[in-house]
Amino acid sequence: MALGVRPMPRRRASLCLIAAALVTTLAHGATHDPLPSWRDGPSKLAITRFVADVTDPAGQRYVAPAQRIAVFDNDGTLWSEQPMYFQALFVFDRVKALAPLHPQWKTQEPFASVLKGDLKSALAGGDHALVEMVMATHAGMTTDEFEQIVRDWVATARHPTSGRLLTEMVYQPMVELLAYLRANGFKTHIVSGGGVEFMRPWTERVYGIPPEQVIGSGGKLKYEVRDGKPVIVKLPEIDFIDDKEGKPAGIQRHIGRRPIFAFGNSDGDFEMLEWTTAGAGPRLGLILHHDDAAREYAYDRNSQVGRLNRGLDEAGKRGWVVVSMQKDWETIHAPPNP
Amino acid sequence: MALGVRPMPRRRASLCLIAAALVTTLAHGATHDPLPSWRDGPSKLAITRFVADVTDPAGQRYVAPAQRIAVFDNDGTLWSEQPMYFQALFVFDRVKALAPLHPQWKTQEPFASVLKGDLKSALAGGDHALVEMVMATHAGMTTDEFEQIVRDWVATARHPTSGRLLTEMVYQPMVELLAYLRANGFKTHIVSGGGVEFMRPWTERVYGIPPEQVIGSGGKLKYEVRDGKPVIVKLPEIDFIDDKEGKPAGIQRHIGRRPIFAFGNSDGDFEMLEWTTAGAGPRLGLILHHDDAAREYAYDRNSQVGRLNRGLDEAGKRGWVVVSMQKDWETIHAPPNP
Repeated sequence: MALGVRPMPRRRASLCLIAAALVTTLAHGATHDPLPSWRDGPSKLAITRFVADVTDPAGQRYVAPAQRIAVFDNDGTLWSEQPMYFQALFVFDRVKALAPLHPQWKTQEPFASVLKGDLKSALAGGDHALVEMVMATHAGMTTDEFEQIVRDWVATARHPTSGRLLTEMVYQPMVELLAYLRANGFKTHIVSGGGVEFMRPWTERVYGIPPEQVIGSGGKLKYEVRDGKPVIVKLPEIDFIDDKEGKPAGIQRHIGRRPIFAFGNSDGDFEMLEWTTAGAGPRLGLILHHDDAAREYAYDRNSQVGRLNRGLDEAGKRGWVVVSMQKDWETIHAPPNP
Repeated sequence: MALGVRPMPRRRASLCLIAAALVTTLAHGATHDPLPSWRDGPSKLAITRFVADVTDPAGQRYVAPAQRIAVFDNDGTLWSEQPMYFQALFVFDRVKALAPLHPQWKTQEPFASVLKGDLKSALAGGDHALVEMVMATHAGMTTDEFEQIVRDWVATARHPTSGRLLTEMVYQPMVELLAYLRANGFKTHIVSGGGVEFMRPWTERVYGIPPEQVIGSGGKLKYEVRDGKPVIVKLPEIDFIDDKEGKPAGIQRHIGRRPIFAFGNSDGDFEMLEWTTAGAGPRLGLILHHDDAAREYAYDRNSQVGRLNRGLDEAGKRGWVVVSMQKDWETIHAPPNP
């Protein structure tokens, strides 16, 4: 059928102009790069292809939105972890703040080294020393009190070498990736060896990840009514260590289904990637390789923090993507707020 | 400015008709009752007023969507729990299925009573006997295997007296309430003393609650690679009991923020309601009272399952709403699928 061309009434013409503008906007939106801090290359392509595949209802690799679970390590994956885990800085500050109540700390390691400002010696005892300090400084208070302390601390805590706020040490490409996945129907979770109650007060603001989607290490909790007021008290007893083989267990315990997308940076994330990518259907595992000494840090096999051996050795045969900070990222951190 | 009335071109007129129809539909939608199985009365009014308050951005009681966390007990709150917890039926069936592998169960209590069909004696040992059977029948297998067993069982398991599928024993007013809260920006969670891995395979289909929003009791989990295949194994060791004072602790551990809405039915939910309603700002706590012997069951203070004493005694002074199944509910269960 041929349509006759007739002059258009003026109002109809305006409506059409609006419609055309709308279509242009939508089309522009569709071609707009959702990952501007990622350089074109195999890593970015692997991500965007995976997302295109699992969201295409007509494709063979389609995954229903409810199954689009993505998990991210935090330290060294979403924000920096050098020269030491940022939570260690928090623990040191807590030791200093509480020292007047514990005069014996002046001569008792690892506390004594912290109070002398010798952080290397304080951490010489490894995870054990850190856990001891966490217990001594975090336990006994209520979860509400602890949340407020973290919130206040994070508002002003700065990185020891860059001088930036710690929350400005998050990786801009990862913030974009989290938003991109969510815009494509993914639910984004943190699965970190760090303390769950240390992360939850700020992850929503910084990453867009609400507290209920943060999985981490934690101590046992006890509910009680103190002077008629219900409180939850942090006990000096470990409940769960969310690291290495603890990560898949933590995912099962908390999420109850296997993710299809996992992103880590150290061998502490190996089992999380292994569990994620061993499932049926499309899966994507990624490892962030810190190979950019000029713009961030370069470390892997022999690092004290964020050691990466097995991941580098086996990524190829397992089909995991090794993301090069140096080659794949246009930007590391967003410019600080003025 | 006066607008002259001009005859409308035919296509414009059709567009206007479509627009008018759309407006009518939307208006109808807005006045449509989202809780048709709830009778008008103080309980329904308390719920709809609370939701109207916390969702009104101009009101003094407004709550941002991220804080709209709602928690529900499961047994006796979202589905029936009489004549016994439905998970006990599952455990009995597992004991029977596994009996050939455990010949000693023929003479060993509580297994022997189950195998003789004497369920009352089997449960005479209380929670301890049930936990012993849970451990003996659930532990050792992988979470994937267990999920499949639950999925298959729930697909056909029927209620001992009504003969309905267990998943048809859910309360229609509660299904409507869950959907109504979600439509108003709430995130709905289950916080149950039942086994978390027993609930997760079917809560999404039945209640619209995804596995990651289900909190329950559970055993410890262990990740391992068996013959090159990663699995998560259920260990015969309790990790967490999500009941009584365990419920607020479970909420903190899993959600990491205090709910503003809690609904339970027994004294096992007392601390969950107490914790929820003691927070600042608008809060709503509700207790379902099973007072309908004609259409469901009537039980409270002296019941073996779902005992409710303190909740009834203190609801008034605590401002909690006691929902009467008999008076407040027009429908108990939806008609079974043909």
